[in-house]
Amino acid sequence: MKLVYTGKTKDVYKINENQVLLKFKDDVTGEDGVFDPGANTVGLTMEGAGKAALRLTTFFFEILKKENIPTHYISSDIENTEMTVVPATPFGEGLEVICRYRAVGSFLRRYGKYATEGQSLDAFVEITLKDDERNDPPISRDALDMLGILSLQEYESLKQMTQDISEIVKYELGKKGIELYDIKFEFGRDQAGNIILIDEISGGNMRAYKDGKYIEPLKLTKLMLEQ
Amino acid sequence: MKLVYTGKTKDVYKINENQVLLKFKDDVTGEDGVFDPGANTVGLTMEGAGKAALRLTTFFFEILKKENIPTHYISSDIENTEMTVVPATPFGEGLEVICRYRAVGSFLRRYGKYATEGQSLDAFVEITLKDDERNDPPISRDALDMLGILSLQEYESLKQMTQDISEIVKYELGKKGIELYDIKFEFGRDQAGNIILIDEISGGNMRAYKDGKYIEPLKLTKLMLEQ
Repeated sequence: MKLVYTGKTKDVYKINENQVLLKFKDDVTGEDGVFDPGANTVGLTMEGAGKAALRLTTFFFEILKKENIPTHYISSDIENTEMTVVPATPFGEGLEVICRYRAVGSFLRRYGKYATEGQSLDAFVEITLKDDERNDPPISRDALDMLGILSLQEYESLKQMTQDISEIVKYELGKKGIELYDIKFEFGRDQAGNIILIDEISGGNMRAYKDGKYIEPLKLTKLMLEQ
Repeated sequence: MKLVYTGKTKDVYKINENQVLLKFKDDVTGEDGVFDPGANTVGLTMEGAGKAALRLTTFFFEILKKENIPTHYISSDIENTEMTVVPATPFGEGLEVICRYRAVGSFLRRYGKYATEGQSLDAFVEITLKDDERNDPPISRDALDMLGILSLQEYESLKQMTQDISEIVKYELGKKGIELYDIKFEFGRDQAGNIILIDEISGGNMRAYKDGKYIEPLKLTKLMLEQ
């Protein structure tokens, strides 16, 4: 297998023309040793983080499969922290699609003049460019279209898929008394050109709270899958 | 007359319930003594800047009146650098609506991964919040709607008006061999609730180039009105 990409939290290997292997690592994003799902740098290494992320990702991707929501997921090997997926091409050089139920993080930093911390948001979707150098700037529907990254129609599809998937995650968390504040996804096109969910769904890309307290990624997997 | 607001480049006085007076000042936005229409601070004072801004604003507002595009403009007293306008309420605590024909300034700083400096843009409209503390963040149609600042319908009206007005400015500049790179506007609601253009249209809120060279505000008025 050939290593094709070394990401912040995963390494990517090519298995064959139709299969890619993602090796989940114990590195998580954050700054100065503090986990932050919105951060651009690897902030710390937590033993078991890769396996916890893969377990929760597998749990959600299996649900999405049953719901006929297209993802890149084929199968997982939890013990070896590996997930086998179909190859996908990102939009442009990569987008992050965020769905927000409460005003926290970068939303609050940008729109704090009009929103209070923790204020309810109605499954609000926004897109940012993956661009570490420019701090992942938010980008509008019109700008995505004009720069040839997404057509207006693809934008609407992404927005709808994001809200559908977020509702499923929110519902599953809700069963355990956990509240979803926000979550970010990555999408791509499969070899047939269809839009599919890629990357992962784990504590590393969402903010989940229980009884008003933030739940860190390892604990989220525990609460969701062991209790 | 009562002073009701001291702005960066104008003071605002209430004449009566139906009239407001704008006193144009010689202060222009910029940083460290260099003019920048995108800046949030008064960067320098240029003798005659207020009068030059008012002359060009009056020129454009008179054209918009003939074109039946609603603005706050009633009349100007160039000698005293004063413009009489109708009262208007801003959207939220103030928006800037930008129309771009070339990729420069904050657009390039945000989207430089996908755009080259000076690349042509097709009358691209974007909105930023007037919020010095948060560096005037860009805000999407959906976020404006969700935060109660603009309805989706008002957004579409603003976008259309912005493109219409920008085309007029671009056309007038073109007659003098000057190219419009980008321009920013402010809009508000008049006492009947209609959307109208407010503030000014001058060198202070656009980037204009001639033969590839940037034209500073005082010179723009001169080129447009004296040659």
